[in-house]
Amino acid sequence: MTAPFRHVAVIGLGLLGGSVLHAVRANLPGTATSGYDADPVVRARARELGLADTIADSAAQAAQGADLVVLCVPVGAMEAAARELAPGLAPDCIVTDVGSSKASVARALAEALPGACVIPSHPVAGTEQSGPDAGFATLFRNRWCIVTPPADADAAAVARVVSLWEAFGAMVEMMDAEHHDMVLAVTSHLPHLIAYTIVGTASDLEKVTESEVIKFSAGGFRDFTRIAASDPTMWRDVFLNNRDAVLQMLQRFTEDLTELQKAIRKGDGQFLFDHFARTRAIRRGIIEMGQDDARPDFGRSDHNGAKG
Amino acid sequence: MTAPFRHVAVIGLGLLGGSVLHAVRANLPGTATSGYDADPVVRARARELGLADTIADSAAQAAQGADLVVLCVPVGAMEAAARELAPGLAPDCIVTDVGSSKASVARALAEALPGACVIPSHPVAGTEQSGPDAGFATLFRNRWCIVTPPADADAAAVARVVSLWEAFGAMVEMMDAEHHDMVLAVTSHLPHLIAYTIVGTASDLEKVTESEVIKFSAGGFRDFTRIAASDPTMWRDVFLNNRDAVLQMLQRFTEDLTELQKAIRKGDGQFLFDHFARTRAIRRGIIEMGQDDARPDFGRSDHNGAKG
Repeated sequence: MTAPFRHVAVIGLGLLGGSVLHAVRANLPGTATSGYDADPVVRARARELGLADTIADSAAQAAQGADLVVLCVPVGAMEAAARELAPGLAPDCIVTDVGSSKASVARALAEALPGACVIPSHPVAGTEQSGPDAGFATLFRNRWCIVTPPADADAAAVARVVSLWEAFGAMVEMMDAEHHDMVLAVTSHLPHLIAYTIVGTASDLEKVTESEVIKFSAGGFRDFTRIAASDPTMWRDVFLNNRDAVLQMLQRFTEDLTELQKAIRKGDGQFLFDHFARTRAIRRGIIEMGQDDARPDFGRSDHNGAKG
Repeated sequence: MTAPFRHVAVIGLGLLGGSVLHAVRANLPGTATSGYDADPVVRARARELGLADTIADSAAQAAQGADLVVLCVPVGAMEAAARELAPGLAPDCIVTDVGSSKASVARALAEALPGACVIPSHPVAGTEQSGPDAGFATLFRNRWCIVTPPADADAAAVARVVSLWEAFGAMVEMMDAEHHDMVLAVTSHLPHLIAYTIVGTASDLEKVTESEVIKFSAGGFRDFTRIAASDPTMWRDVFLNNRDAVLQMLQRFTEDLTELQKAIRKGDGQFLFDHFARTRAIRRGIIEMGQDDARPDFGRSDHNGAKG
């Protein structure tokens, strides 16, 4: 396979930006890399780690000579980052991003980079860690990447962006930005909102101490604390930028929760049983699709992970 | 250490019952074991697996000669199981259980076994798996076990039950049944209810297909599907038996969720950021206490788990 790009520039050197750079190195040898982050501390650390061939001191400088720019900043910072890099952008350069909401990002990039070839994408992959040390080359492997080209996108440019993600081991699906935002509202944004909520609720009770919540978290609560440890700036921006779809999904969730609450209050065991019995099939589907670890308890490596 | 019991009988041979039997074998050699399950298919499988020295055909028969009976049935089945085993119970036999709610179980067992020495307990450990094949000896290791002795409990009997859990590698904490039920409502019952709700909501949308939910679940949703794959009978019973504490915690959760919903609707980024920033400390506490895996993404073993 010919490498789809000669020179990949990454703006934003956190978990996603770092992982893109690691993945280029691991899968596309010979492709030049450059990087930039608005935070000088992050730039210094990125230089120490050797995340890219060069870590530039401005977004425009990082973009210079690149035939692909990947924006890996929180979705609320996309427009400003695009305006900053614009002076360095070559006319034939393709711009993509990794933002978790797509309609608002597509609008912001079209406005900031008039005439540029923008092919937004969203690799559905991540961990709860953030910062320049958090990235790794295999983050995208066996994960889905959603590409949301505008209706009039250049087919060759789309194909090159798709090749990049495929070179990283991802499976690519195309959809329009509005549908993406609806799908991700339920598979990612609502789960994060709920996890942030319950962790906040638990830390704020009078009758149960925080130390008790921590001690007895293995009963289920600890699962929620992982995603509630995700980057606050990134998630603030997701909720501000995908507001309508999130509120719509939240409405559905609240209706369903109210129904279960009523069943508990009334002591309707049959309703509870029926509801709890039908949710197993989805987990089975996720495991069959290779999207989660089949071992009990996620195969957690800790003290009780191993059968024996 | 002298083994705290000569003969441990286990009623209910699912994940917990099986794990208790494996843990007795692994940690207390020389202790006799017997087992019983109301389901003849489970009894047959337990015999094939050799889960106990003898698998009896009635609860009373399993209890015969035991100096400890451990009830490992769903909390709604505790009273009936206790009535069934009563004819086989020796006068000096101690009865404990592993139920996830304690006040209602204590009442049920006191009623079914008048005069018996009942010391309820709740090992806060489990996986989403169930059935006679699901248990393993190390399930309790480094996990907390809450013992809720009645006010007039015999101190020596309490000490023997505590020794059993400690022999399995658990750390023991004592509290009264009502406080237990409040703590577990937030650390276990509410998380399960919410996970069951969101998985149900996601599988029931018009605009997003179940196949899309499964494909793109790595964005956060898949975490919820694990606990929503737990045993429906067990969880029906938990909600029916710890109703008041669960409804009280649910009320708090709903208030907090409504507040975040309002912040999203109003576009109040500062409120969202402040809320999301304060939930990281709890995760840190859980990891420092050894109650979860510190590695990103729970150290999931799948294709993208390893750094590289």
